[in-house]
Amino acid sequence: METARIGVTGLAVMGRNLARNLARHGHSVAVHNRTSARTKSLMDEFGDEGTFVPAETPEQFVASLERPRRLVIMVKAGGPTDAVIDEFAPLLEPGDMIVDGGNANFVDTRRREAALRERGIHFVGTGVSGGEEGALHGPSIMPGGSPESYEALGPLLEDISAKVDGTPCCTHVGPDGAGHFVKMVHNGIEYADMQLIAESYDLLRHAAGLAPAEIAEVFRTWNTGRLESYLIEITAEVLAHTDAATGKPFVDVVLDQAEQKGTGRWTVQTALDLGVPVGGIAEAVFARAVSGHAALREASQHLPGPSRTGAVSSSGLPDAVEKALYASKIVAYAQGFHEIQAGSAEYGWNIDLGAMATIWRGGCIIRARFLDRIRAAYEADPQTPTLLTDPHFAEAVGDAQDAWRDVVAIAAKLGIPAPGFSTALAYYDSLRAPRLPAALTQGQRDFFGAHTYRRVDRDGTFHTLWGGDRTEVTS
Amino acid sequence: METARIGVTGLAVMGRNLARNLARHGHSVAVHNRTSARTKSLMDEFGDEGTFVPAETPEQFVASLERPRRLVIMVKAGGPTDAVIDEFAPLLEPGDMIVDGGNANFVDTRRREAALRERGIHFVGTGVSGGEEGALHGPSIMPGGSPESYEALGPLLEDISAKVDGTPCCTHVGPDGAGHFVKMVHNGIEYADMQLIAESYDLLRHAAGLAPAEIAEVFRTWNTGRLESYLIEITAEVLAHTDAATGKPFVDVVLDQAEQKGTGRWTVQTALDLGVPVGGIAEAVFARAVSGHAALREASQHLPGPSRTGAVSSSGLPDAVEKALYASKIVAYAQGFHEIQAGSAEYGWNIDLGAMATIWRGGCIIRARFLDRIRAAYEADPQTPTLLTDPHFAEAVGDAQDAWRDVVAIAAKLGIPAPGFSTALAYYDSLRAPRLPAALTQGQRDFFGAHTYRRVDRDGTFHTLWGGDRTEVTS
Repeated sequence: METARIGVTGLAVMGRNLARNLARHGHSVAVHNRTSARTKSLMDEFGDEGTFVPAETPEQFVASLERPRRLVIMVKAGGPTDAVIDEFAPLLEPGDMIVDGGNANFVDTRRREAALRERGIHFVGTGVSGGEEGALHGPSIMPGGSPESYEALGPLLEDISAKVDGTPCCTHVGPDGAGHFVKMVHNGIEYADMQLIAESYDLLRHAAGLAPAEIAEVFRTWNTGRLESYLIEITAEVLAHTDAATGKPFVDVVLDQAEQKGTGRWTVQTALDLGVPVGGIAEAVFARAVSGHAALREASQHLPGPSRTGAVSSSGLPDAVEKALYASKIVAYAQGFHEIQAGSAEYGWNIDLGAMATIWRGGCIIRARFLDRIRAAYEADPQTPTLLTDPHFAEAVGDAQDAWRDVVAIAAKLGIPAPGFSTALAYYDSLRAPRLPAALTQGQRDFFGAHTYRRVDRDGTFHTLWGGDRTEVTS
Repeated sequence: METARIGVTGLAVMGRNLARNLARHGHSVAVHNRTSARTKSLMDEFGDEGTFVPAETPEQFVASLERPRRLVIMVKAGGPTDAVIDEFAPLLEPGDMIVDGGNANFVDTRRREAALRERGIHFVGTGVSGGEEGALHGPSIMPGGSPESYEALGPLLEDISAKVDGTPCCTHVGPDGAGHFVKMVHNGIEYADMQLIAESYDLLRHAAGLAPAEIAEVFRTWNTGRLESYLIEITAEVLAHTDAATGKPFVDVVLDQAEQKGTGRWTVQTALDLGVPVGGIAEAVFARAVSGHAALREASQHLPGPSRTGAVSSSGLPDAVEKALYASKIVAYAQGFHEIQAGSAEYGWNIDLGAMATIWRGGCIIRARFLDRIRAAYEADPQTPTLLTDPHFAEAVGDAQDAWRDVVAIAAKLGIPAPGFSTALAYYDSLRAPRLPAALTQGQRDFFGAHTYRRVDRDGTFHTLWGGDRTEVTS
């Protein structure tokens, strides 16, 4: 009894691998699953990797945990998570902790945290990124919840997380839903990153006429420079792969309809609620949606377009696309960090933005050399309203912008969709603009709806009597 | 007693004007407001416009209505609407109708309709567009709710709606939340329309170097052609207006921070839930958000950009921009109608898309000659998956596309933000594309998350053993 430091319930691949990761690091782990076959299979296959304490019933499981109990649930987000909480919470005591390592919506996490807090139980909504391999070998971990719970849990989580330069990819994000919020935005940024890579590939393929294997080489080269990252690395792998059945490039035999789960969509919906523009993420989500509308695409096959061939020399394009990709990536991250900043302010989480960049450097899907630059930017100016004004990024975008503009123009003229590059550039130019045509929008709103406007030269809100003599009145 | 055909409670300007519109059309109208001063002021100022039956209390108000009772509530969306429903519902009898003419979220409307249906009361969520003037002189009206309620209400609502070619701008949209859903998408399209106009103005101003008064002339000319619409008309008016206080163009003294209420945001959030790409609307919502982030813009003032001057001759640009505007507008409407189609399928509303175009031809903010074309497109093919493949629109876009591509390229090169034009073009090119880079995205997802993929050459879902010998397995 009470022999396990921590327990994991829900032993599908993510839960199993987290439990093994804990055991391999010398922590005794109680393991439980609704159907005990999974528990047995874990013990049979991996029981010698460390100290596992298998439990058949929730009661056994809870009884086997040291106090205060650390109980990790690794089940599907939504209803199943609530069901498991309802099952275990009555067995726990004040001071115990429930860690939800699933991809929960942060709104649900806030609700659950508040409900369990009333019973004295710490609910720790925790983002875990890195997929199956990450869970086993070291994920990026983003725990929310109370500071007290982090005191008891942090050392274990840091222990099993990825490390970069000796620093764990795990830190206390902030209260209640902060961890799941940050994980959500992480995934939104991942969508944007992948879309920009997809557009880069598409341009190299259809504007420069390169073959997938040649493009794989381009990505391999990029991976030795400032774009070095897990996603660029695996892009080269995927593009270099040949389908055994047909002998064709793998990327040509895969159906071009991208799927999605929900965190990208949530990131955009939440940004809209917070009033944060995240065009890079939104266009990525929409691009996946477009790709999946087979009937719509089928019907549109014969819509007129320009000729795609022979318009661009293949020699200069890879460098130009690299610049467009780097600049657009900076924008996508700037938007994502803006959303975290706004969420933190809205919910009083006090999130350390630089620390988020730090724990994303390893373990997770968007791990990248680039994140060290973001960490440094927030270290230099923790209150910066946007990453774009950090001297390093401003200079990088300044150097890239001619090529970036060319790439957007080339895509437009050749009929190659580049919504990610375009929206990033438009965002950049909007932020820079001394004046935006939003003044006209305000004028129209005042005209048709008497919504009033402000002036550049004095305070107050004003309305023009458009239907009358067009004098201006104070509103 | 029982002398009024219909009643209006909530006599702020929209409610007052709707009541006056009803009275002017010969319908006796009971009028009520929480504070009776507004009722009195309506009677004092406009009592001679028709037959008003003023009521001081909810009980008097309800008692004055013919049966089945038609009770229109014109109060703020959200809590105030629920409060008024809670106040009046107990006074009503089965068969009576509550019409909510506010800008409610359709999800709330579905909830309210279901709750009141259990008590035998018809709840009619109704979109009303056209602002104050429209409410008085003839709005576009989009009622949801039961067919029975439309039998009793339709004739009155059609009577006070705008008319185009003798056809009322009012029809039964569909059950429960359908009316408010369609009104929401109407507003989303309005956002996109306004953003495209703003970008057109910005390009004419900063790429062609035209003055606001000159641009007003351009819009006036456009308003005699295929772009003829209320928004183009008032754009010319706003741009031609001179600020009396400074002698400057009005558009130059208005603060360039656009505001928004919530329907544009809801349109995008709902589209995300439905899996419908609505980049044109999203970019419009984000453009307003960017404009309002004063600190972010201030910090970004000195980010490097290209020179804006002297790059384009002013003679050819207006025509090119007209084409870009028309093509992008077609895309924005195609996206909006796609959302209505998807919402209708999701909720079983069976919405007649052509009828929506028909009732938007007059009364509402997006009224336009163009909508007749949309009506005709759905008449020709009610099941078309997208307006873009309608022969008229396909031809128009085909004619416009060279100019459209040029405009996007010019904006990119000169550093003038054109997110609306760009996203519309990318959407168009995505739909046309024989292959999308989504295949690469699927390959990446399979690599890092074992999310599997489909193949172009046979059914099933597959997974490549990326960490192993890279053979393919059936999943």
